[in-house]
Amino acid sequence: MTAHEVVHEVGVVLFDRFELLDVFGPLEFLGQRRDRFSLTLVGPEAGPVTSAQGVTVLADCGWFDASVPDVVLVPGGQGTRSLVNNAAFLTWLAEWAGDARVVTSVCTGAGLLGAAGLLDGYRATSNKFAFDWVVAQGPSVTWVPEARWVHDRDRWTSSGIAAGMDMTLALIADMCGVDVAERVATHSEYDWHSDPTWDPFAAHYGLVPPDK
Amino acid sequence: MTAHEVVHEVGVVLFDRFELLDVFGPLEFLGQRRDRFSLTLVGPEAGPVTSAQGVTVLADCGWFDASVPDVVLVPGGQGTRSLVNNAAFLTWLAEWAGDARVVTSVCTGAGLLGAAGLLDGYRATSNKFAFDWVVAQGPSVTWVPEARWVHDRDRWTSSGIAAGMDMTLALIADMCGVDVAERVATHSEYDWHSDPTWDPFAAHYGLVPPDK
Repeated sequence: MTAHEVVHEVGVVLFDRFELLDVFGPLEFLGQRRDRFSLTLVGPEAGPVTSAQGVTVLADCGWFDASVPDVVLVPGGQGTRSLVNNAAFLTWLAEWAGDARVVTSVCTGAGLLGAAGLLDGYRATSNKFAFDWVVAQGPSVTWVPEARWVHDRDRWTSSGIAAGMDMTLALIADMCGVDVAERVATHSEYDWHSDPTWDPFAAHYGLVPPDK
Repeated sequence: MTAHEVVHEVGVVLFDRFELLDVFGPLEFLGQRRDRFSLTLVGPEAGPVTSAQGVTVLADCGWFDASVPDVVLVPGGQGTRSLVNNAAFLTWLAEWAGDARVVTSVCTGAGLLGAAGLLDGYRATSNKFAFDWVVAQGPSVTWVPEARWVHDRDRWTSSGIAAGMDMTLALIADMCGVDVAERVATHSEYDWHSDPTWDPFAAHYGLVPPDK
């Protein structure tokens, strides 16, 4: 194995009422290349965690027991609304993700990163339906209302739910080459929006003028 | 509750090495409308089932214990390759899904429906990468190589992996109205390919001429 073929450890933060596709869209793509990415689900504790849609998955380890991965992925979902008031969680997230090489979020997961201070001084985006709530979690963040995703140095933040899949393919392209990302998208019969500025939903939710 | 607002029971067939997004793309959308759809995961037995990507989810009940739902969803994945040789599974699937009102598949899940005889006399499609293998499972099926999904009476079959999300939105539109489907797509910031004939992947994999 050459240095180019290093396996990147991805740690996925789970919590009660996480959004299903925020997690499993990205993991479908990363999981197709288990030669390049290893996946660890990090829940409140090892064992069952139930999504907002009622589906239960098994976490591999607990928040406070997880080793620091190369890449952190934080999803959104209704569960974020109480987690931003959970000081123990935010303190752990700030330290654990702060030591990772790359920190990513999907949807309102950016609210958790913002509340933990992990986006201070960065440009970032989040979903459009709950944008105001997310912005309130990170007063020292330069929030970008119109973007499919924002990549600023070691932080990648995507818009709502399905946008996480487009961001993940861009992350795969960044880490493994665009040819690898394109093969994953084609194998998945997925129409990759590879332009991070593509975002019709910002205007739909009134975050930018409709005729922009 | 009026007849229009009936809750449709959806039974999702799981098996070892199912494809993650085949299941959780559709369940993200259906699960946003739990006022209209209830979800049951049906594994070999109640309890853990591990996907092709290594993620483990908990099945609500076992194949042979599941009551007949309104809608059956059969995903694809590497696990289909051994299941088409599992006579007990195919016999159960033929009877159980045969009694459902609507039977759907994503990706190589159509190979399981074909092997169980559930597509005999129907038009159907499947993913493009493994199309020949799927066709071989259903000799009495009219296979359609170029389609995002095919809806023929009470059977809905989609192309590979991500195509299941487009088909699911069309199913929601059919059962609940197109306004409901569009709201789910917009809330998910998902670019719904609502035209079932949209399929650039058929030409990519040589199933139709590239200049068609």
